[in-house]
Amino acid sequence: MKALVYHGPGKKSLDERPIPELTAPTDAIVKVTRTTICGTDLHILKGDVPTCEPGRILGHEGVGIVHQLGEAVSGLAAGDHVLISCITSCGRCDYCRRGMYSHCTTGGWILGNRIDGTQAEYVRIPHAQSSLYRIPAGLDEEALVMLSDILPTGFECGVLNGKVQPGCTVAIVGAGPIGLAALLTAQFYSPAQIIMIDPDVNRLEVAHRFGATACVDNAHTDAVAQVLKLTESVGADCVIEAVGIPPTFELCQQLVAPGGTIANIGVHGVKCDLHLEQLWDRNIAITTRLVDTVSTPMLMKTVKAGRIDPTRLITHRFRLGDILAAYETFSSASSTRALKVLIEAS
Amino acid sequence: MKALVYHGPGKKSLDERPIPELTAPTDAIVKVTRTTICGTDLHILKGDVPTCEPGRILGHEGVGIVHQLGEAVSGLAAGDHVLISCITSCGRCDYCRRGMYSHCTTGGWILGNRIDGTQAEYVRIPHAQSSLYRIPAGLDEEALVMLSDILPTGFECGVLNGKVQPGCTVAIVGAGPIGLAALLTAQFYSPAQIIMIDPDVNRLEVAHRFGATACVDNAHTDAVAQVLKLTESVGADCVIEAVGIPPTFELCQQLVAPGGTIANIGVHGVKCDLHLEQLWDRNIAITTRLVDTVSTPMLMKTVKAGRIDPTRLITHRFRLGDILAAYETFSSASSTRALKVLIEAS
Repeated sequence: MKALVYHGPGKKSLDERPIPELTAPTDAIVKVTRTTICGTDLHILKGDVPTCEPGRILGHEGVGIVHQLGEAVSGLAAGDHVLISCITSCGRCDYCRRGMYSHCTTGGWILGNRIDGTQAEYVRIPHAQSSLYRIPAGLDEEALVMLSDILPTGFECGVLNGKVQPGCTVAIVGAGPIGLAALLTAQFYSPAQIIMIDPDVNRLEVAHRFGATACVDNAHTDAVAQVLKLTESVGADCVIEAVGIPPTFELCQQLVAPGGTIANIGVHGVKCDLHLEQLWDRNIAITTRLVDTVSTPMLMKTVKAGRIDPTRLITHRFRLGDILAAYETFSSASSTRALKVLIEAS
Repeated sequence: MKALVYHGPGKKSLDERPIPELTAPTDAIVKVTRTTICGTDLHILKGDVPTCEPGRILGHEGVGIVHQLGEAVSGLAAGDHVLISCITSCGRCDYCRRGMYSHCTTGGWILGNRIDGTQAEYVRIPHAQSSLYRIPAGLDEEALVMLSDILPTGFECGVLNGKVQPGCTVAIVGAGPIGLAALLTAQFYSPAQIIMIDPDVNRLEVAHRFGATACVDNAHTDAVAQVLKLTESVGADCVIEAVGIPPTFELCQQLVAPGGTIANIGVHGVKCDLHLEQLWDRNIAITTRLVDTVSTPMLMKTVKAGRIDPTRLITHRFRLGDILAAYETFSSASSTRALKVLIEAS
């Protein structure tokens, strides 16, 4: 089969690899129909993710058809149309019992990281019963690819952790795919304002179409002053960090209102300054989270009900044979205006 | 009347001052019977609190007798025995409606800071109706002085924000009065372990008597290694920072378990490093809080029921006339072994 393989920092190629086989009775082999590329895949290619070793097939998002099932898997059948969660979970360890699937002691984020992933014609899914979701008839497959990772990440790490509530003010720092996923799902809760902050005017235009009530270009204006002006000098109740670098996380600290929350989604490579001398008495919370995908079934219902249309995040489409071009397009987002690139695997 | 007056950084004296008068119909004048000194008073004396100007009577804790009431105050009468909350609250502004009394737009922490405080024979209390608590008969007055600030601070900023639950593991960094208040109130929730960390062995001995299940001397041992050993390499679910300096806050980041919380109580004067490169995917929360004193009525019930004995925090007693000696004793805690010093004002 064809597979996109990581060969160490800066190196990847579309290789021929054998179709994976069942290795445990709880495994499934899924024939991938559609997958996509995540910002995290670019982090791996930069060499930022030491757990991902050369030779690894990348990808942790996708939709497919159950090809083969281990004998211990119940509730699924060969031929079932399934959504692959980016998080693998046994459903039984202490963390899984708490709904913290991201920290499953034999799972978590392993696909396309510690084990081969979804940017291939077939993928082996461990703990299949609690890591695959059967797709109800009538659901758009392209929309569901967005539910493997990006929608639950924006929703759980940003909107749920940020405690978005009716009438509150939300500020989202970063209007890339993850920030836009937070923007889309924040609207479930009817906040009074959603202020998007990004230096890329194209992305701000998208944010405006997606429902932002205000857009702040922080390359050319003072974002703190703008947000204070928009919030009667109070700041934002919920500040979502969707970038992952010190300057944006520090900006969040200046935007948060007393009693508010900074919900971090960004993947950070270095430490940053925490201004406790200003924040110790502000009654705020800062949260971090690797997505648990506890919200996947709920998000499927919102898609089915038409409450949300995740296909709006898809800007480009490729065949698996052209995945190197897809990477090129996705990694040059400022010129290609790419958000999510969809890859048809079969 | 006698009053302890701040005269600028490093300067204080016991002065004669006029008895305060009602300035608004919502005020009360309280004859102070007992007060105490807080670590925050020492911060003021170092010049760390710019809102507190020279000429100010210090003190934000105390118990007394209602001497005089403004005409708009109901539910209280002259002669009532009352607990003075360190937080003044109007009960009506947006923050008060949310129970965030610490950020009351015309109150908050103003006593002994922006207005004259309790280290005097009499004190004026604004918004008396929602800032004083009538003391039920039979309650020990000395115990209640500990409920003005230190007990609710340890409980709300540490235990409540830290989400202490039955069976969880708590690590408290700092065994001073505030850390000990958190230790006492954490036991309401039956955690499996409470690990106290401090470089002062005398304070650790006190912590042991107060119910700590383990004490770690971080001057002579590796606190991280000790806590990991005590928690099967998981870390603590709830880490309470009760010091307020960068090294202790960074220690907390190394102690917190995945899914855990760092509840900051410490008053910080400078920024510190936040290791987001290690914490972004650990599903943790960091909280800050200026005490709201929402728990004062509840804490009074626990004292009345004998569930907690805050007088254990009191190590020294002085008359108001000897308050300069009380400051000396309190600020030399490492040699005097002082925790809280009680001052009889009349």
